[in-house]
Amino acid sequence: MKQNFSLSGMRDFSSFQLKRREYILSNIKNQFILYGFLPISTPIMEKRNNLFGNYNQEGEKLIFQVLKSGDYLSSINEYNYEETSSDFSRLISDKALRYDLTLPFARFVSQNRSSLNFPFRKYQIGPVFRADRPQKGRLREFLQCDVDIIGSQSLWSEVDLLCLIDSVFKSLSIKSIKIKLNHRKILEGLFESFSLNISFDEFCILIDKLDKIGIDKLIDLLIDKGCTKNDVSILNALFLSKLSFLEKKSMILDLVSNNNIKKGLDDISFIINQLKTHSVYDSIEFDISLARGLDYYTGSIFEVVSLEDNTGSLLGGGRYDELAEKFGFKNISGVGMSFGLDRIYDLIDLLDLFPQHINNELDFLFINFGVKESSICHKYILELRSFSYSAELYPDDIKLNKQMNYANNRGAKFVIIIGEEELSLNKIKVKNMTTGKQKILSFSEFIKTFQIDESKF
Amino acid sequence: MKQNFSLSGMRDFSSFQLKRREYILSNIKNQFILYGFLPISTPIMEKRNNLFGNYNQEGEKLIFQVLKSGDYLSSINEYNYEETSSDFSRLISDKALRYDLTLPFARFVSQNRSSLNFPFRKYQIGPVFRADRPQKGRLREFLQCDVDIIGSQSLWSEVDLLCLIDSVFKSLSIKSIKIKLNHRKILEGLFESFSLNISFDEFCILIDKLDKIGIDKLIDLLIDKGCTKNDVSILNALFLSKLSFLEKKSMILDLVSNNNIKKGLDDISFIINQLKTHSVYDSIEFDISLARGLDYYTGSIFEVVSLEDNTGSLLGGGRYDELAEKFGFKNISGVGMSFGLDRIYDLIDLLDLFPQHINNELDFLFINFGVKESSICHKYILELRSFSYSAELYPDDIKLNKQMNYANNRGAKFVIIIGEEELSLNKIKVKNMTTGKQKILSFSEFIKTFQIDESKF
Repeated sequence: MKQNFSLSGMRDFSSFQLKRREYILSNIKNQFILYGFLPISTPIMEKRNNLFGNYNQEGEKLIFQVLKSGDYLSSINEYNYEETSSDFSRLISDKALRYDLTLPFARFVSQNRSSLNFPFRKYQIGPVFRADRPQKGRLREFLQCDVDIIGSQSLWSEVDLLCLIDSVFKSLSIKSIKIKLNHRKILEGLFESFSLNISFDEFCILIDKLDKIGIDKLIDLLIDKGCTKNDVSILNALFLSKLSFLEKKSMILDLVSNNNIKKGLDDISFIINQLKTHSVYDSIEFDISLARGLDYYTGSIFEVVSLEDNTGSLLGGGRYDELAEKFGFKNISGVGMSFGLDRIYDLIDLLDLFPQHINNELDFLFINFGVKESSICHKYILELRSFSYSAELYPDDIKLNKQMNYANNRGAKFVIIIGEEELSLNKIKVKNMTTGKQKILSFSEFIKTFQIDESKF
Repeated sequence: MKQNFSLSGMRDFSSFQLKRREYILSNIKNQFILYGFLPISTPIMEKRNNLFGNYNQEGEKLIFQVLKSGDYLSSINEYNYEETSSDFSRLISDKALRYDLTLPFARFVSQNRSSLNFPFRKYQIGPVFRADRPQKGRLREFLQCDVDIIGSQSLWSEVDLLCLIDSVFKSLSIKSIKIKLNHRKILEGLFESFSLNISFDEFCILIDKLDKIGIDKLIDLLIDKGCTKNDVSILNALFLSKLSFLEKKSMILDLVSNNNIKKGLDDISFIINQLKTHSVYDSIEFDISLARGLDYYTGSIFEVVSLEDNTGSLLGGGRYDELAEKFGFKNISGVGMSFGLDRIYDLIDLLDLFPQHINNELDFLFINFGVKESSICHKYILELRSFSYSAELYPDDIKLNKQMNYANNRGAKFVIIIGEEELSLNKIKVKNMTTGKQKILSFSEFIKTFQIDESKF
């Protein structure tokens, strides 16, 4: 049996894939910069204690823990056989791989609060790690591209983030997206009005399952947790209605009205009103069934899905008010979102939206006919590079057809041949690999002509 | 006491630092591409077994090991109290953080050998992890920028890599570097001729210590290991001579001559000869005391240090013939090198070589005077971004001087003010933050003029 040297759920990327990823990343980054976001970066690992206690129990199971260095067993005095793995982990591990970029950001903000210029607009791009069961569209290491605006409660931040979503997807030629928008305060208001025997967080986790289990099953679950018939009819009406925001708004206020609901609806009204004349407006759908599982959201929440394919969530985000409290920084409100690079990649691939030019590999390959010829070639190669053309010498003087074969697979645009004959004439042979056209001329003549008009070759 | 939430030996990077890192990275990457290298990427983690058994014992102690997920204790039957931590780790850990980019690359090449176009020129940029004692210039997470040419024994690869070193450091305006060049076969030849009771690898590790302990202490150590007086005098002569390569070459051949030494010297001769007319030539110093601690090198080895500061090695590299054997791919020779980003950063910082333009932060900040004004501002902001200017709205309508303060700290080039008066006139006020100059005009007039000639503002 062939030995498998790779970890499951983690991927190598070939040059082909990596160039496509970089195309996406550079578009995203470009928009981040135009929107005034500044880069930061944090380590791959965090203190174990920073991470635990922030995600729900299901989340914590997915955290990769790193063993202490050195003779970690020697410091365990009360080690007890009967202990569970998770208790034991606390003794032998003090570091863990980050689960998202949000928590490290909260730590960063808290630790650098005296030097940061608030409201602080940051972006961070980097891998995060989750020990999920590997499956299609779900990796154990994946790249997140986060933006956050922290240090202001202004809803203009939400308005700007929604425009940014539109700009990023447009820059990638992705046209049909839906931005689901909701507010935790609306869910909180609903929760308050219901007679449930679970916590608000548990309520959100249940609501989050709607997509997977469907409305009937969700309602069964909620009835189990104490929902009344009246509650159910309200939920049914809200979740199933295909109304506009304004219609939904008045419907909610008719059915349930409390301060939380009013606050949530006011916020959403402001955001939507400011976007009425913007192209993002048509993508936004007020969706009361959007809950976003993570504990830390306290205001607006949003999520992006494709209308052309069921690739799952391409982006998630929302407002949080207490995220940095764990790190001793209170009352600092922020709103942020995270683009999922791997899913966006899959979507662009599926819709065949990668531009052709990404494939261009190499401008010039020089054929190797031996040391004497190669010495000349290498000097020309260095000169071409100084003019910003990519160029390389085939390192071995093997048969010509093998070298041409390499040039073909390499996607070289031109092959330069300096054999015995060319050498004696002090010329080079330029072969266009697309047209097959060949020209013999001196190198200085070539470089002069080529820089003015490539199409002559 | 203030709680410390950060792991020692790992760093957060502020926007200020990150922009400088990106300046270095983009210069390095640009040269990699001109030299015909293709990007690849591998996961942060590798199977534990991939990593162990490749670095010497000292190296293995520095590997960060990741705990198995789930109830890992339940699967340990023969768990024995007396066991050492390192034995126990093998039972509870199956993954580890990569120690360098070379070994994951060997795995990558072996697994993708059928689809790769050999000789394969790759680059990879990414963090690696070592549980070193944290100290200045030595981090536990640091970024490596690797290039490798694998699938050819041609010394043209070495020639090209040495030119690349020159190109990269020149592109960063770093002028005074020394490239130490040696060959493992020369060291092997010396080792053969000596009567030592240690292995060749142990010999290399000793030689590697020369910089730290000095020649006298090194010779004491070697005498301990069986070196004769004659051996010592040869070493002394070779290590201390300030001769040119050709002089050193004939000196070595006079003192010791065997096949390994001859092969090593021939290779170095070829490389140096091909570079005689190149600007890199003056940076190269043939240094018989360069050993490079890692086990896998078998041919040329090289290292770059700064002549202006003692920042340690900025780059290390060499040829390896058996690296992919562990992964079932035999007889595949390669040569590669690794730029150490963090040390290069420190050097550029010390020499004050970062260009000024890196600091430019934001083109336009719009002052917030309330919802009515901000609605207009936000539309203008979106328009400016569509013309590739970075722009943002201050999110809250707080006092003007606080907003101006933010604009200053933010490094905004221009502040745009649309207050009640400007709104009623349908104009904007543009303030140049460098000169203090102000102009009042309509937005459409502004954008037209600004695009043609920024200096009018």
